[in-house]
Amino acid sequence: MQTLHVELGERRYPIFIGSHLPVQECLAPYIKGRQVMIVSNTTVAPLYMAGYQDALEHAGKQVMTCILPDGEAYKNIDTLNLIFDALLAARFNRDCTVLALGGGVIGDMAGFAAASFQRGVDFVQVPTTLLSQVDSSVGGKTGINHPLGKNMIGAFKQPSVVMADMAQLDTLADRELSAGLAEIIKYALLGDQDFLVWLEAHMEQLVARDANLLAEAVYRSCAHKARIVAADEHEHGDRALLNLGHTFGHAIEAYLGYGEWLHGEAVAAGMVMAADLSCRMGWINAADVNRVRQIIARAHLPTVCPAIPVEQFMALMAQDKKVLAGQLRLILLKQVGQAVISRDATPELIWETIAACQQPAHPVGEQNA
Amino acid sequence: MQTLHVELGERRYPIFIGSHLPVQECLAPYIKGRQVMIVSNTTVAPLYMAGYQDALEHAGKQVMTCILPDGEAYKNIDTLNLIFDALLAARFNRDCTVLALGGGVIGDMAGFAAASFQRGVDFVQVPTTLLSQVDSSVGGKTGINHPLGKNMIGAFKQPSVVMADMAQLDTLADRELSAGLAEIIKYALLGDQDFLVWLEAHMEQLVARDANLLAEAVYRSCAHKARIVAADEHEHGDRALLNLGHTFGHAIEAYLGYGEWLHGEAVAAGMVMAADLSCRMGWINAADVNRVRQIIARAHLPTVCPAIPVEQFMALMAQDKKVLAGQLRLILLKQVGQAVISRDATPELIWETIAACQQPAHPVGEQNA
Repeated sequence: MQTLHVELGERRYPIFIGSHLPVQECLAPYIKGRQVMIVSNTTVAPLYMAGYQDALEHAGKQVMTCILPDGEAYKNIDTLNLIFDALLAARFNRDCTVLALGGGVIGDMAGFAAASFQRGVDFVQVPTTLLSQVDSSVGGKTGINHPLGKNMIGAFKQPSVVMADMAQLDTLADRELSAGLAEIIKYALLGDQDFLVWLEAHMEQLVARDANLLAEAVYRSCAHKARIVAADEHEHGDRALLNLGHTFGHAIEAYLGYGEWLHGEAVAAGMVMAADLSCRMGWINAADVNRVRQIIARAHLPTVCPAIPVEQFMALMAQDKKVLAGQLRLILLKQVGQAVISRDATPELIWETIAACQQPAHPVGEQNA
Repeated sequence: MQTLHVELGERRYPIFIGSHLPVQECLAPYIKGRQVMIVSNTTVAPLYMAGYQDALEHAGKQVMTCILPDGEAYKNIDTLNLIFDALLAARFNRDCTVLALGGGVIGDMAGFAAASFQRGVDFVQVPTTLLSQVDSSVGGKTGINHPLGKNMIGAFKQPSVVMADMAQLDTLADRELSAGLAEIIKYALLGDQDFLVWLEAHMEQLVARDANLLAEAVYRSCAHKARIVAADEHEHGDRALLNLGHTFGHAIEAYLGYGEWLHGEAVAAGMVMAADLSCRMGWINAADVNRVRQIIARAHLPTVCPAIPVEQFMALMAQDKKVLAGQLRLILLKQVGQAVISRDATPELIWETIAACQQPAHPVGEQNA
């Protein structure tokens, strides 16, 4: 078991990472009150909830459960309200704890419920997908979707403790595993060339779910994100680097309808597009772009975006909330392993990237050579 | 015009208090972004909204409005969602500002919307009732009701600036004015004997809406609350003193159905009950209780609670969220002008207080003499 501490002053908390982690020892010391509401979904609950409920009851907690329908389509205000209903029906008070047991959607909704119930109660996260282990474990972003935009309503809410158990990844679909690898690759690309080299050495074993290597990848990813978040908790500056690939990715998701591609898949294609655009700006070379494309392909992730009319793609990008005062802010690569926030990409270059990255074969190298 | 600064470190903000305040000078310097959403209701908007909209547009802002139905009955998740709808339909981004123009209900909902939209945007408060000027101006409590409990869902959200204009009180109903005076009296009773003496000297002029005296009362009340909140922003300690009269009051409101009595009226009767109970505990004497009753009566507020079966009243008190780990925590008076948080009141004494304070005449003095 590895332990990583996210350093946020008095909101400092540990992330336990390993396989078959002991629930009671990991969680109970960080749950102050007696009442615990486990929020999960119809997919995860039958697999893992009983173990958590038993362990926490064994530790003297009063455990209630709230099982939500599974899927991004339910990440809305009505489903959020089901958590409030459960908390109030159980007459839970303000020293209760909300425990999220599931992937990113469950973490986002349970976290927002914890942030809002009685103006804030304690929150514990047990992410059960690779993506949520490396993404929502650190950063405190919670929220729900609105018909007019994704993640538009939410709060920053830090958990008291996070437990990332690699054993739970055994039941994860291959596509979901790859989507998690996309975010892991993102940390390497945006700021850690050593990690990229490590991933290049181990990608096939990660895809084959080697538990020790996955734990190491989760640890390094969380540590990286934790450093960025500790320096910029509320996303006023460098935290935006974590959005590498996301503005392109969100446009893909919005075009296809959320859920058609997984978020990680859209980010994967988005990162190739960010690399392509960085190359067009003269920051990285064609070999760098191919290196980005290679590691993404080896994680069984898409390296091109679906066929989307370029004009429409650009309109969707402009709707992304990373638009600040009307100006499109993109995360691009100064070099592989060093991302920057940039407002310098011209519409013409963005247009070229979108057009180029829709082709199944898009040899940027040959164009620019 | 008086200016009070609420000292909350980097979230420090000013409250401007006076009559016919200049909107543009007071607000514009504290609104960083260009987009402003004025949230108001069907009662207040026709009276005051155009003035604010014009002044802010004159200052170069893009102003949109969102007019909600009036009343506590609408302080729910569906009405909250109307604010999100308006923000997203207007394509407001994360450097926008939500401006609450109205009483406590508007302030609570607009504040929670500001806390949650894009995980937090700027918030400005223009409280238009005496109650909201002295209560929601300071403290940052926002939220909505749930069918199973009042203010159960919300956030702590500090405004960038507050503007309390006494001229707007001219259109306030007498009952609403008195409800505001209840909270003002509360500050005197819980911690400021000098202020109580001042209120005793001026109560009739306050009821007659002397603008200068009202401004002074608002200033002193906000200053008092600001001191408490600055020391305990998230209500872990002394901030609970602000709930003097509230546990009794909430029971009255819950029994009658919210809206039957105004919140301030219920708190007024609740403060007499808290004084009565403090007397039964031997902390203050019968003359003190009568002093409390007198100042409340002179503000045209109820000094007795409606006829409610005692057992039911106690059950409703136990549901109040001030119950911590199952124990009823009451705010009582060690002396007039000094409240304390106490878990020492026995059920028997609470029973006696409820029974005694239901009678139109309830001479505690004679009982205890």
